[in-house]
Amino acid sequence: MSGSGSTTIEQHEFSNGLVLLAEDMPGVRSAAFSLLLPAGAAFETAEGLNVGCGAATMVAEWITRGAGSRDSRQLLTSLDNLGVMHSESAQTLHTTLSAATLGSNLEAALEIFADMVLRPWCEEREVEPIRALCLQNLRSLEDDPGTKVIYELRRRHFPEPWGRPSPGTPEGIANLSAADLRAFRQAHYRPNGAILGVAGAIDWPRLRDSVGRLFGDWEPRPQPRLCEQPAGPRRDHITRETQQIQIALAHPVATVDSVDYYRARAAVAILGGYSSARLFTEVREKRGLCYSVYASYESQRERAAMLCYAGTSADRAQQTLEVMLGELARLAREGVEADELEMMRAGLKSSLIMAQESSMSRSGALASDWYFLGRVRPIEEIAAALDALTPESVSDYARSFGATDHLTILTLGPAPLTCPAAV
Amino acid sequence: MSGSGSTTIEQHEFSNGLVLLAEDMPGVRSAAFSLLLPAGAAFETAEGLNVGCGAATMVAEWITRGAGSRDSRQLLTSLDNLGVMHSESAQTLHTTLSAATLGSNLEAALEIFADMVLRPWCEEREVEPIRALCLQNLRSLEDDPGTKVIYELRRRHFPEPWGRPSPGTPEGIANLSAADLRAFRQAHYRPNGAILGVAGAIDWPRLRDSVGRLFGDWEPRPQPRLCEQPAGPRRDHITRETQQIQIALAHPVATVDSVDYYRARAAVAILGGYSSARLFTEVREKRGLCYSVYASYESQRERAAMLCYAGTSADRAQQTLEVMLGELARLAREGVEADELEMMRAGLKSSLIMAQESSMSRSGALASDWYFLGRVRPIEEIAAALDALTPESVSDYARSFGATDHLTILTLGPAPLTCPAAV
Repeated sequence: MSGSGSTTIEQHEFSNGLVLLAEDMPGVRSAAFSLLLPAGAAFETAEGLNVGCGAATMVAEWITRGAGSRDSRQLLTSLDNLGVMHSESAQTLHTTLSAATLGSNLEAALEIFADMVLRPWCEEREVEPIRALCLQNLRSLEDDPGTKVIYELRRRHFPEPWGRPSPGTPEGIANLSAADLRAFRQAHYRPNGAILGVAGAIDWPRLRDSVGRLFGDWEPRPQPRLCEQPAGPRRDHITRETQQIQIALAHPVATVDSVDYYRARAAVAILGGYSSARLFTEVREKRGLCYSVYASYESQRERAAMLCYAGTSADRAQQTLEVMLGELARLAREGVEADELEMMRAGLKSSLIMAQESSMSRSGALASDWYFLGRVRPIEEIAAALDALTPESVSDYARSFGATDHLTILTLGPAPLTCPAAV
Repeated sequence: MSGSGSTTIEQHEFSNGLVLLAEDMPGVRSAAFSLLLPAGAAFETAEGLNVGCGAATMVAEWITRGAGSRDSRQLLTSLDNLGVMHSESAQTLHTTLSAATLGSNLEAALEIFADMVLRPWCEEREVEPIRALCLQNLRSLEDDPGTKVIYELRRRHFPEPWGRPSPGTPEGIANLSAADLRAFRQAHYRPNGAILGVAGAIDWPRLRDSVGRLFGDWEPRPQPRLCEQPAGPRRDHITRETQQIQIALAHPVATVDSVDYYRARAAVAILGGYSSARLFTEVREKRGLCYSVYASYESQRERAAMLCYAGTSADRAQQTLEVMLGELARLAREGVEADELEMMRAGLKSSLIMAQESSMSRSGALASDWYFLGRVRPIEEIAAALDALTPESVSDYARSFGATDHLTILTLGPAPLTCPAAV
């Protein structure tokens, strides 16, 4: 069995601040890239800008509507002609442009994306169709309560603007002008703070030169200032006539750059990250309370959270919430077992190795590692950190889950549940 | 740039009828398998059985609740200890068991799955929790109108039981007994008609021996007889107080084993299979009518359909439906352009090559090719067939989209739309 250990990771920082990271994957014919722009929905609130909620999403669509020498149709056609699968979307922290194609088409695809980033037409007449689209998207979110509750959970758990939902709000989208959108793009589509991860069939010197040529004259812009507002409320209910009650919890955990990172990941995984994890066993399997239940880890640079989710019928929702809270309390009180830690390790290592085999997933991991750590972790480093965990060290970390005053609980459905009070 | 062309595909049919297909992927450390069992929801209607709608889904869950020497918890724990990502689910035609892990853990994972298939405990006391789960899943489907409309579209478009929704119905799930579920499993979990696709880091002679040892004493069962009922209604509306109206269309197209297969795939892709495809351009981009719109190809062995979907607000729904129908008529009337065909080819080839790089996707493709064709197509064959398409040949095929009497139109939302009459 040959390994994928023979890849090399290259990096280069251009003078305008753009960071390029690349991994040549032997035996792979595809190539993928992820470009993280520091232009997520949180930056809609930047000092001196403060545009409506939804600007990041509208701009991510606007830049595809004609750029460089190509109009909207020619641009999409050119990407399709190169067999490029692509997406352009805003999240809370970043606007992410990503693409996958054959290695031989990588450079041509990057050229089109450079036009979108540096030379979008941003025509006024495109604003109304884009506004209509984004309002449709918000309506479809109303028909998708499981996704909506997680957006609303983040909004309440993280201090504003770090929980700002990227799809925007109806009022925000309705009131954004072309001038607002241009101002947003000008301020935040900047190379300082941008990270381009590329993986697959690549030729490093050539890639570095191409990226330099394509993105070299991109002008840096000042780092925006954001004004942070307190999070909350910690307990809330959204009334909707849904069939199921959606239950969502969030609790603070260690960030990716913290010394506690691997302990936090292990604790979250043991609670609800694999098929025999505690939440799954107690909520789904033993009691049949709901079909899907999980806990996941989600990090920003300066804060991170464990998110837990379950959706169930009204008559089972109170019990489901209580079992979830009970498992959180038990994790804090009793810690984790050696065999659970082994299982968590096996799962994380196996998914790491599998992710290592996909150019798309690797390009995203390169960019994300750089964002969090300013470097890319070799897979061996991650494996060693997982190996160093002990039941005692993880149990010790899990004690932090006992403090329910930092817990955010949000439900969505016809009627609220009874929650433990927030301190 | 090195290619992935050096893989070899092996096949073996065991005396009980089980077909094993395997592809050794050089440079890959993971291994994945897909086991297709001829035990989809359609077979709930087999002559002499005729159990309630939902049996296939309940049984797929039941077999994970203890098998061989392991109880429910030990079974999931063993898979987690091997770092196996897995899923067990019923669709209309098959029940699919799939898994991905490191190549070194493949054999151990297969052993556990052999227990689930051949020696599940199927304890009576597990039936109620599973019933509760499946009812929860149906409720969550009511909160997911975009998914629900496609299930209901298939039910109306394909002759019964070929559109039978695998999640079941509330009545079906409520009335199924342990005896019904056992009868379903006994009749349909059979090696004749089962296909096991394995791809990644494998050793063929050893794999063949292991599979023979693990599944060799699995007894064949008679091929069940199904009684086909007419499809319909061709025009229908489901009333739900959703935010958006869901629009779903289905039209018959050529099956995978047809000489017209590639022409059909091309026509569907040009209508709505990539980012500058016609539906996307006309519905989303030019008119901003809805956020997501697509056409996709879906085949069974003896029938196939093009499915089209859009979700939009009440005030735009009638126009959206008319634009969709107008594009279908235009495709039939005017055919396709040379540049559209080029684009479609580039997209399909690029996604073929990318799928070639994933052990999970390859294991599924091996099993699916065998199901449809009784052999596995080399990627070169697919590429050559795409190259042989001409605008004339695809346009000629697309004429079949002009006959709206075979078109099924289903809407879901607060109020129905005006549809062209079914003949």
